Amino acid sequence: MVRLSDLAHGQEAECFGALSKKEPGTDKNGNPFVRCYFRDKRVVRVAPLWFANPIREVSEGWPVGEAYRLKVRGDQTARYGFQLEIIAGRPVIEDDKADGYDFFDLVESTDYSPDLLFETIHGYIDRYIQEECLATLVRRILDENEVSFKRMPAAQAFHHSFTGGLLEHVWSMTRVSGFLAEHYGKYYSKLDPPLNRGVIVAAAILHDIGKLRELVYHPVEVKYSTVGSLVGHVLLGRDLVREVARTIAGFPDETLLLLEHAILAHHGKEEFGAPKAPQTIEALIVHYADDIDSKINAAARERLRSTTDEQFTDKVFALGRRIYKGIPQEPAVDDPKDLTA
Amino acid sequence: MVRLSDLAHGQEAECFGALSKKEPGTDKNGNPFVRCYFRDKRVVRVAPLWFANPIREVSEGWPVGEAYRLKVRGDQTARYGFQLEIIAGRPVIEDDKADGYDFFDLVESTDYSPDLLFETIHGYIDRYIQEECLATLVRRILDENEVSFKRMPAAQAFHHSFTGGLLEHVWSMTRVSGFLAEHYGKYYSKLDPPLNRGVIVAAAILHDIGKLRELVYHPVEVKYSTVGSLVGHVLLGRDLVREVARTIAGFPDETLLLLEHAILAHHGKEEFGAPKAPQTIEALIVHYADDIDSKINAAARERLRSTTDEQFTDKVFALGRRIYKGIPQEPAVDDPKDLTA
Amino acid sequence: MVRLSDLAHGQEAECFGALSKKEPGTDKNGNPFVRCYFRDKRVVRVAPLWFANPIREVSEGWPVGEAYRLKVRGDQTARYGFQLEIIAGRPVIEDDKADGYDFFDLVESTDYSPDLLFETIHGYIDRYIQEECLATLVRRILDENEVSFKRMPAAQAFHHSFTGGLLEHVWSMTRVSGFLAEHYGKYYSKLDPPLNRGVIVAAAILHDIGKLRELVYHPVEVKYSTVGSLVGHVLLGRDLVREVARTIAGFPDETLLLLEHAILAHHGKEEFGAPKAPQTIEALIVHYADDIDSKINAAARERLRSTTDEQFTDKVFALGRRIYKGIPQEPAVDDPKDLTA
Amino acid sequence: MVRLSDLAHGQEAECFGALSKKEPGTDKNGNPFVRCYFRDKRVVRVAPLWFANPIREVSEGWPVGEAYRLKVRGDQTARYGFQLEIIAGRPVIEDDKADGYDFFDLVESTDYSPDLLFETIHGYIDRYIQEECLATLVRRILDENEVSFKRMPAAQAFHHSFTGGLLEHVWSMTRVSGFLAEHYGKYYSKLDPPLNRGVIVAAAILHDIGKLRELVYHPVEVKYSTVGSLVGHVLLGRDLVREVARTIAGFPDETLLLLEHAILAHHGKEEFGAPKAPQTIEALIVHYADDIDSKINAAARERLRSTTDEQFTDKVFALGRRIYKGIPQEPAVDDPKDLTA
Amino acid sequence: MVRLSDLAHGQEAECFGALSKKEPGTDKNGNPFVRCYFRDKRVVRVAPLWFANPIREVSEGWPVGEAYRLKVRGDQTARYGFQLEIIAGRPVIEDDKADGYDFFDLVESTDYSPDLLFETIHGYIDRYIQEECLATLVRRILDENEVSFKRMPAAQAFHHSFTGGLLEHVWSMTRVSGFLAEHYGKYYSKLDPPLNRGVIVAAAILHDIGKLRELVYHPVEVKYSTVGSLVGHVLLGRDLVREVARTIAGFPDETLLLLEHAILAHHGKEEFGAPKAPQTIEALIVHYADDIDSKINAAARERLRSTTDEQFTDKVFALGRRIYKGIPQEPAVDDPKDLTA
Amino acid sequence: MVRLSDLAHGQEAECFGALSKKEPGTDKNGNPFVRCYFRDKRVVRVAPLWFANPIREVSEGWPVGEAYRLKVRGDQTARYGFQLEIIAGRPVIEDDKADGYDFFDLVESTDYSPDLLFETIHGYIDRYIQEECLATLVRRILDENEVSFKRMPAAQAFHHSFTGGLLEHVWSMTRVSGFLAEHYGKYYSKLDPPLNRGVIVAAAILHDIGKLRELVYHPVEVKYSTVGSLVGHVLLGRDLVREVARTIAGFPDETLLLLEHAILAHHGKEEFGAPKAPQTIEALIVHYADDIDSKINAAARERLRSTTDEQFTDKVFALGRRIYKGIPQEPAVDDPKDLTA
Repeated sequence: MVRLSDLAHGQEAECFGALSKKEPGTDKNGNPFVRCYFRDKRVVRVAPLWFANPIREVSEGWPVGEAYRLKVRGDQTARYGFQLEIIAGRPVIEDDKADGYDFFDLVESTDYSPDLLFETIHGYIDRYIQEECLATLVRRILDENEVSFKRMPAAQAFHHSFTGGLLEHVWSMTRVSGFLAEHYGKYYSKLDPPLNRGVIVAAAILHDIGKLRELVYHPVEVKYSTVGSLVGHVLLGRDLVREVARTIAGFPDETLLLLEHAILAHHGKEEFGAPKAPQTIEALIVHYADDIDSKINAAARERLRSTTDEQFTDKVFALGRRIYKGIPQEPAVDDPKDLTA
Repeated sequence: MVRLSDLAHGQEAECFGALSKKEPGTDKNGNPFVRCYFRDKRVVRVAPLWFANPIREVSEGWPVGEAYRLKVRGDQTARYGFQLEIIAGRPVIEDDKADGYDFFDLVESTDYSPDLLFETIHGYIDRYIQEECLATLVRRILDENEVSFKRMPAAQAFHHSFTGGLLEHVWSMTRVSGFLAEHYGKYYSKLDPPLNRGVIVAAAILHDIGKLRELVYHPVEVKYSTVGSLVGHVLLGRDLVREVARTIAGFPDETLLLLEHAILAHHGKEEFGAPKAPQTIEALIVHYADDIDSKINAAARERLRSTTDEQFTDKVFALGRRIYKGIPQEPAVDDPKDLTA
Repeated sequence: MVRLSDLAHGQEAECFGALSKKEPGTDKNGNPFVRCYFRDKRVVRVAPLWFANPIREVSEGWPVGEAYRLKVRGDQTARYGFQLEIIAGRPVIEDDKADGYDFFDLVESTDYSPDLLFETIHGYIDRYIQEECLATLVRRILDENEVSFKRMPAAQAFHHSFTGGLLEHVWSMTRVSGFLAEHYGKYYSKLDPPLNRGVIVAAAILHDIGKLRELVYHPVEVKYSTVGSLVGHVLLGRDLVREVARTIAGFPDETLLLLEHAILAHHGKEEFGAPKAPQTIEALIVHYADDIDSKINAAARERLRSTTDEQFTDKVFALGRRIYKGIPQEPAVDDPKDLTA
Repeated sequence: MVRLSDLAHGQEAECFGALSKKEPGTDKNGNPFVRCYFRDKRVVRVAPLWFANPIREVSEGWPVGEAYRLKVRGDQTARYGFQLEIIAGRPVIEDDKADGYDFFDLVESTDYSPDLLFETIHGYIDRYIQEECLATLVRRILDENEVSFKRMPAAQAFHHSFTGGLLEHVWSMTRVSGFLAEHYGKYYSKLDPPLNRGVIVAAAILHDIGKLRELVYHPVEVKYSTVGSLVGHVLLGRDLVREVARTIAGFPDETLLLLEHAILAHHGKEEFGAPKAPQTIEALIVHYADDIDSKINAAARERLRSTTDEQFTDKVFALGRRIYKGIPQEPAVDDPKDLTA
Repeated sequence: MVRLSDLAHGQEAECFGALSKKEPGTDKNGNPFVRCYFRDKRVVRVAPLWFANPIREVSEGWPVGEAYRLKVRGDQTARYGFQLEIIAGRPVIEDDKADGYDFFDLVESTDYSPDLLFETIHGYIDRYIQEECLATLVRRILDENEVSFKRMPAAQAFHHSFTGGLLEHVWSMTRVSGFLAEHYGKYYSKLDPPLNRGVIVAAAILHDIGKLRELVYHPVEVKYSTVGSLVGHVLLGRDLVREVARTIAGFPDETLLLLEHAILAHHGKEEFGAPKAPQTIEALIVHYADDIDSKINAAARERLRSTTDEQFTDKVFALGRRIYKGIPQEPAVDDPKDLTA
Repeated sequence: MVRLSDLAHGQEAECFGALSKKEPGTDKNGNPFVRCYFRDKRVVRVAPLWFANPIREVSEGWPVGEAYRLKVRGDQTARYGFQLEIIAGRPVIEDDKADGYDFFDLVESTDYSPDLLFETIHGYIDRYIQEECLATLVRRILDENEVSFKRMPAAQAFHHSFTGGLLEHVWSMTRVSGFLAEHYGKYYSKLDPPLNRGVIVAAAILHDIGKLRELVYHPVEVKYSTVGSLVGHVLLGRDLVREVARTIAGFPDETLLLLEHAILAHHGKEEFGAPKAPQTIEALIVHYADDIDSKINAAARERLRSTTDEQFTDKVFALGRRIYKGIPQEPAVDDPKDLTA
């Protein structure tokens, strides 16, 4: 097996690839053809399947978003760049794992273990949320949505837009929120009532939970559901919180209100889609932690992605500007003298 | 009985007045006194109750927002304007109605009969909403909230900010929405699905229903409830709709979604507090009808209120500018020559 | 005759088409060629006329914007999509009508009869405008500009951007204005002077009349005139009103001022090109009716145009967002006559 | 005679003053009184006329905005500041000039001679406008409006808001425009057509001519006319230009269009009230010259007005910030040691 | 001694007070008087010194911003509120400390020990800044500006606007920055070069150091220096960093550039006064930490300050909205049943 | 020699061209090729160098931004437009000047002599700057940066974006500033201190001097330096001024502060990158002169560049709109028939 992204011009090999798009067309003679796009974690390659290619007809039954085992030849063209010539192909089967197949090698996804992230978030509940009802609420929502939560991206684009991105974002942002809750709780210890750490951490964990209803998971390109477009994740998340809270006897109204408000306000301003701007310090902290985490993710991912010689990345969409990459640290082994020593 | 607004300088009389504010203070000698503000539909008058005035102590038990029967003397002062000297007073009783007491004479309120407006709105349901579930939903919400709905203002300021204002606004705005639904339904008769008149009219009737929870009724000055500030009437209204829809067997999901969206989107833009901007033609119509009705109300009320000689009103807050009053139509009888002819 | 939009790959047929653009070029050998674009109501097709094609030279004398009778062959290419091969062609002549030629089949145009719309607008004058001078003014302007008014689009893009679009928009928007004038006239019947229904309806009819000078009519793509760009239709329309009013003896100053103001203010805000924002209720109503009508047209046309499987249209430029299309009503069983035939 | 602004506490003297406002009231006993405000160039003083004061009744016939000869006594009060006690008074008469009466000493007005400014502007016409029709147009408008033009302020507030301010602004701004026309005309001498200096200077002179219709002159506080509010000086000025151009045989269309456009566009942006933003270099120059001249006037007047020890002026409204005053140049003679040396 | 804020009506006592303002005036008889405003940490009180009061003349030599020992009588007036009657007074002397005088009791100041905060910040240098040059730079700047840094407010208003406020803000914001530097450094450990923790912490400590030149310290009301207004603390801080860096041999250019950029960019956007928006992740972190810390301080101080019964504070200027105060935790002893148990 | 822009289809000739870009690629067979782009003042032409072309390998050593002497054949293609076929080529040598080589014929550059512009600016120093220290400062900075200053563009795009553009802009903008300084100095002659003409002219000359550090000169396409992106020319220019001022004994603080402020504020508003908005009249004048000069340059260049038949140019990026070109003046002699008549 060769990685799709490692395939060279003229090389013939077997590769795994996720089918990310199919573009049907008609050739000069009026015959149908199709352009299939296959990807692994690092590249997307186009494979034109012309009329006469027997794979063309087979491919009609291949759903987009699934993985395939392909026999291909690399073809570097002057006009259309690198293309794949498909010699054979079929959907992956269980046995392919023996040959190294792993779906998450084929899509852009978190570098962290979803299981570990999920567990770490559970640890934050134990550590920060003392009100039992509230801890129950958060645990119940997490556990009932575990599968979906472990793989959903945080967004279609913008930040953490990859499989597992939502979980990675929630982990990081909850860690930041927890620190801020402790810091400002102590700093302003005279506040009465004191800062509600439990609400801050619960809202951090749940702030984007509505995305599980807003988005329709797809390993390659998530879509918006209809209710996601017409109602949106901010409200859908609050709905879920209210529904579950209703099942927990004696859930305190005030705690629920503070939690709802922090979720509703996490976009920070009306023009960014918050039905209400933050009116509690708890909601302010959740909003800022979300904002920092998404912006730094956008900047850091762009730095990691950028492979040009330029000193700046391309424009980071979420920030509206380019990011300075700095001077890479030369690893010692790069020096040939070291190698021959 | 004399109307509070008709009381002249030096005149002593009995009046009804609603107590709109109490301002306690301390006089030069360190003795407590209080300034009570009484109003009828047209004026607010201040009544200073000095330390020695026996009514001062009595008034401590008078709640703000209630009506009182007062014996007063008018006092036009050079420095503080027209004041009331309170000679005697007590809360109104049932028998005062015989003397002409009507609470709605004491506060700014709609010129229309709340009962008639309410009935007219019910007529719109019959006329425009054919889907039975939907008609049931709207009727049930109206009937369960009839008392509160008949007296709530539409806002603290801005537009329809008087007792019964919400109902007046909903009546007018529903009438406009109904017309637009019919007009554009016929105009774009090729749309499939066609414009949903039922959803438009239901959303028009219910768009501000959350104000019954957002605001705390007060005949003189409404306040925001805590949940009103932290969650807001847009969401509270949608919550109510969902709660009631859940009690109606077989309520269609699609109808509920269209209705929810139209309520959520009625402020038109995110920066004006709509969690989602209108994404259906139904929601666009509801938004525009709301916008027109509130802006024209603000302008028309200011024209009606303005009694100066200026050709323009004061600045209308909701519009950010003054309104031209035009040339009043001289009634023929104003000309003394006509009178003596 | 075959409709241009129905022509299939490989099919040879006669079609009518409007020439919308000509792009001259030079081929590999330095020889001139030209790409002609022909359209009917639904599609635009490119026809490359290579150097050797005898029609190429003939086509040099064909003005853009006119209709042609063509003998063509359809050619679906893999790389350049569907193209036309022109075998013969000539400008249409009167006799082509016998073969079904109708210019308005070749361009995007209103679905309504311009004559009927025009007549309906005259009906609104009769119904709403009681001041005789004002009715005369509106009728005179309409009649003097009838031909141009019946075919002009309302805009280059944005809304009602098709032949007859201005008339369609003015009809709909006047209908809405007339309703609002009546509704608010009765609602605020205490206003003195009362709402001026005549001014509202006159301004609705004439608000965009300056577009007849701002735009240069073209069946396929209207252009801005120089004075249109440098002065604009808002002022040009007011100029026309003043010019005609000057010819009507005894035209009241106040009526003219109210009418001028409503036309000048119809864009609603300075940043949208209104030299003055609306300062009368009449002008507010005209502005809102214009705004609603243009936005709903943009949304409805996009819904009608959209043929994808997506639940949302493409982004509607005038709104800045996509519109939810809803669930189409399944037709087959809808017509009982079909079933029993 | 003593200057109103020089009158000291307890001093009794004769002064001239312009009556800028009258505020009627009712005293503690219900008797009417009135507060008259008199001003000279530097101060405004309040004069309470109590019920018993015989001047009170006399003053009822005194129109605001006129000059009066007063016998007064200065009265510095702890609570109400400096007040005037009026002993006698009457409107000024011709003979008062012998005693030094000059209306322009009583109001804020230009430091320059209106006649000289007017003449200088005529000189710019001779110098810069070679097209005879255009020069005729400008001269005719100036001459027909000479009286009004010589005294109107440029605005109610903001900049040049004093008697003669419009003329002063037009003079300065035309001088700047003339220079820019020459400089950029030579700089970009390859432009075809070349920069039209005549249009630039004509538009500079006439850009605010509509203010003569927008504002109603008042020596103390100008007001907006109704047509000024509803149509505005930008359009009223263009109307005047078109009206006069129509009386000049053979006035070239292109010149008129360029001039109209430069007047319409002089506010620079739609949101600042320009129906069209500048689309010619001529219009750009006129806009910039207007912008500079008004902003520098606002800043310079505030520096001249500021008499505090602070290093910065108060906030300049037109700029939204305070202006640094710099280090005054100490005249050598100010130091008493130098004087006695 | 009695605290100024504890003085009751009619009570005569000795108090310490800081003189915050002097307002000279002239009484009804033309005699001079002065209103002195004295404050302690919690209240500001006005003391009118009438003409005849012997203290009036003495007070002419009292500079504003200093502390005084006063013998006063409290006077609650009906019209002017609580006033002080000054019986005697003098500037404080060293011996007054024996009577409990502490200047910081008289002004609003940090609740934390400046010495401890300063020391803690030094601890952050040791912990986070490994590059020796950079640590030297930060230590040198801190130590050379220790006195000024320990007492300056962070702003005239907005946030941390009290004596010692700058230090308190820098401490908190550095703590937050240090945490974020560690968190994101580990999170994005693949970045090359890695996040520069030293630069983040150094910029956090120094980001507002220019305020020591921008503001002129005053215990009651800081002012802007001229260079502060014309150049601003953002640039003045960077200047200081460059000046000191120049004195440190071998200071790396890249480190200096990253530090300069983070200081220049800490306001986050051009419109908030950042000459450049953040273009490094280091600068993003410093900006966000500054933003959070100032906004939460503004909200928390307002909650601590608010003593009304309302559920919301007054509007927090820095946020543009009110903050929900929540339900205070009832101390057990408040329950009368507990008391009588 | 033939001008590159004059080369015709099929013509073989020698041309000079500046190499503006190289795009390497791989052809259908996997062989490398490169597209070179050569330009002269008026056109940019692409020259594909296929694998087999011997020049391809040679060209690998050709740096971008340099001039080359080429033997080429013109090739007008149908699909890719006009291309160059390179037959031979080498970098230019000294002797090529004999054949008419001039680098400035190959790049877009100022129409004016850099030497003359530079000299003229020196003349403005002599004329306007009387303070000797200040004149020394400006002269020293100019002379030390003469080479760089004479060729730098004023920007990457936007305005004066061509070789020598910075100098041309500074000349024109200084001329305008000098006039405004004189005009407003006399107009507001009562200001104390008077307008500082020296500071205005010095700031005009130096306002963009930081661009010499912000940009990296390239005859074809300038780039931003790292420090240019992270700090920016506004601050870099001020740094240079401070550095040089420090070397001039007795340079007055106040003059330096006014100069620094005018440079820092020349972008006019914070959102346009001015760390401080103008707070002196001197800084206002410099800002406005810069603004006018850049906007008029953008408009005028676009008019000169536009060769279409349209009455308007393309959209001018710096203005956001198109510019009316006006009616060209037909020189009578242009018609050859007239000439031969």
